[in-house]
Amino acid sequence: MIIDCHGHYTTAPKAHDAWRDQQKAAFKAGGDVDPPYPAISDDEIRETIEQNQLRLLKERGADMTIFSPRASTMAHHVGDEAVSQAWTRRCNDLIKRVVDLYPETFIGVCQLPQSPGVSVAHSIAELERCVNELGFVGCNLNPDPSGGHWTAPPLTDRAWYPFFEKMVELDVPAMVHVSGSCNANFHATGAHYINADTTAFMQFLEGDLFKDFPTLRFIIPHGGGAVPYHWGRYRGLADMLKKPPLREHVMKNVYFDTCVYHQPGIDLLFRVIDIDNILFGSEMVGAVRGIDPETGHYFDDTKRYIDALPISAEDKAKIFSGNARRVYPRLDASLKARGL
Amino acid sequence: MIIDCHGHYTTAPKAHDAWRDQQKAAFKAGGDVDPPYPAISDDEIRETIEQNQLRLLKERGADMTIFSPRASTMAHHVGDEAVSQAWTRRCNDLIKRVVDLYPETFIGVCQLPQSPGVSVAHSIAELERCVNELGFVGCNLNPDPSGGHWTAPPLTDRAWYPFFEKMVELDVPAMVHVSGSCNANFHATGAHYINADTTAFMQFLEGDLFKDFPTLRFIIPHGGGAVPYHWGRYRGLADMLKKPPLREHVMKNVYFDTCVYHQPGIDLLFRVIDIDNILFGSEMVGAVRGIDPETGHYFDDTKRYIDALPISAEDKAKIFSGNARRVYPRLDASLKARGL
Repeated sequence: MIIDCHGHYTTAPKAHDAWRDQQKAAFKAGGDVDPPYPAISDDEIRETIEQNQLRLLKERGADMTIFSPRASTMAHHVGDEAVSQAWTRRCNDLIKRVVDLYPETFIGVCQLPQSPGVSVAHSIAELERCVNELGFVGCNLNPDPSGGHWTAPPLTDRAWYPFFEKMVELDVPAMVHVSGSCNANFHATGAHYINADTTAFMQFLEGDLFKDFPTLRFIIPHGGGAVPYHWGRYRGLADMLKKPPLREHVMKNVYFDTCVYHQPGIDLLFRVIDIDNILFGSEMVGAVRGIDPETGHYFDDTKRYIDALPISAEDKAKIFSGNARRVYPRLDASLKARGL
Repeated sequence: MIIDCHGHYTTAPKAHDAWRDQQKAAFKAGGDVDPPYPAISDDEIRETIEQNQLRLLKERGADMTIFSPRASTMAHHVGDEAVSQAWTRRCNDLIKRVVDLYPETFIGVCQLPQSPGVSVAHSIAELERCVNELGFVGCNLNPDPSGGHWTAPPLTDRAWYPFFEKMVELDVPAMVHVSGSCNANFHATGAHYINADTTAFMQFLEGDLFKDFPTLRFIIPHGGGAVPYHWGRYRGLADMLKKPPLREHVMKNVYFDTCVYHQPGIDLLFRVIDIDNILFGSEMVGAVRGIDPETGHYFDDTKRYIDALPISAEDKAKIFSGNARRVYPRLDASLKARGL
């Protein structure tokens, strides 16, 4: 079984995005930021999924995607908390509809109603709703709700603890995932995403978060940002900061996906990171949608790169499903309930 | 001949740092931010260099370092423009003293008197002084003088153009190098440095700067941040943004150093980046000062990793000196004047 741990609904129906535009306009005008939501038929949803994620999933030979709202349009920096709360509910409800239409192929991960300057404790209720009522198995946590101004405290700050306590209680992991950038310095998918991955890892290294939360789990996407490439730097910094080796200090709680869009990058990832810390992911349909002229295949068809690795069938099973089932226990329970 | 393109005076005499403390205190108190500078003897400078950079350079078998003031203490965000101007002159003058004491081993690159919200045009005079009067061969340009708040425009913005015009006129390159971070999210050497490298590259990719400045040259340090690891992503983004291939669009003007502190990272760098775009560098004595327990050698002894590569003697000569002499023409002229 092949599970892609990193997929977003980047192809949502136009009416969904039109609602968002309406909401943003209402916020500016001082109107209702939770206007009535348009009727979107099951067929409309089927069309957006079957022509895109489902088609590509089948073509590439995968079985399932851990699916969440489009990351770049979470846009926690837009509007205020009420705007973020309403938009987030609509986005998560839409994911739930996809999961209900294709329960064998998609399982939900939620966006959170974060907002700059607002306590992340205000995101707990939506996490509970998505996990307990909608059957979601994790969340996307934005370490920078300001969208590129980095005004929130580091993830190791106690301000985040109430949310982490709830994650532990529900036994769900978070993918550390920023959204779009409103800072002209940072291209969203080319700089902000990768920087956030690197930043989060270094925060975990500098802090002692996992002493307080030994079972808390994070997926750092995009292959861990710059971290595997600079693995020697991070091992050396842990040493200089008098921390235990990374394997004990960070890597019992942190996982990287395989959203690295060329063979040499994937080769490096597998050379330096333990097999138990890597989860198959593609972020398809996502940041890079073209075909690599050097290979003739989609840049983001990351399964091909893993297929090409000289690793055992047992290790491939970990990458493609075993690790994901371990990191997302509610996914594992759902699969077991289906006899898988 | 082996030239390390990336060394900072991280071991400057204590009196130099004490002057800085005095200056910062004077700024807070509304006093003179350019107080008299202490007498520092040649012997004091010799001691700090001979026990550190010079000793390690010899032990590791290199010949020369392109040497600049300590990057983390440029701290352009501290004080105001007058503070930055005075501190910068003192730092650059100190580098000049090192170069004068060891003219065969060190050649200077300058810090710039940048300051948040102040036009980079105000840094032109110091660049001219350092190049024309002190014999320096390049500069360190900080894309984020705010120290982690990223309030300046991207490097492709026309606000930077007057400075770039002067770089072109003087025929000197810039290393894109941030300083310390005053944003708690970003550890300086573990996140801010690497993020800045990645960010600068993506800015160059997104813009068309080198159409306007075909001979402008930048070194992106720390192995290019996350870029080589995500080379497929960047090739794919160039394609999506309708830019020419990276080799034409960016890599005629951008170079990466080898400050990547483990063999797998260096292997990746050489696998994906053209040999003509890589300059030997170690950032010694710098961010990571310990010994790698996996190898028994210093993490930042990057020459060892290059020595271990299966590349030709001709390619090694490019990495170790040829590329540096091409990117820093004033270094080349200086060496030729010495018959080298």
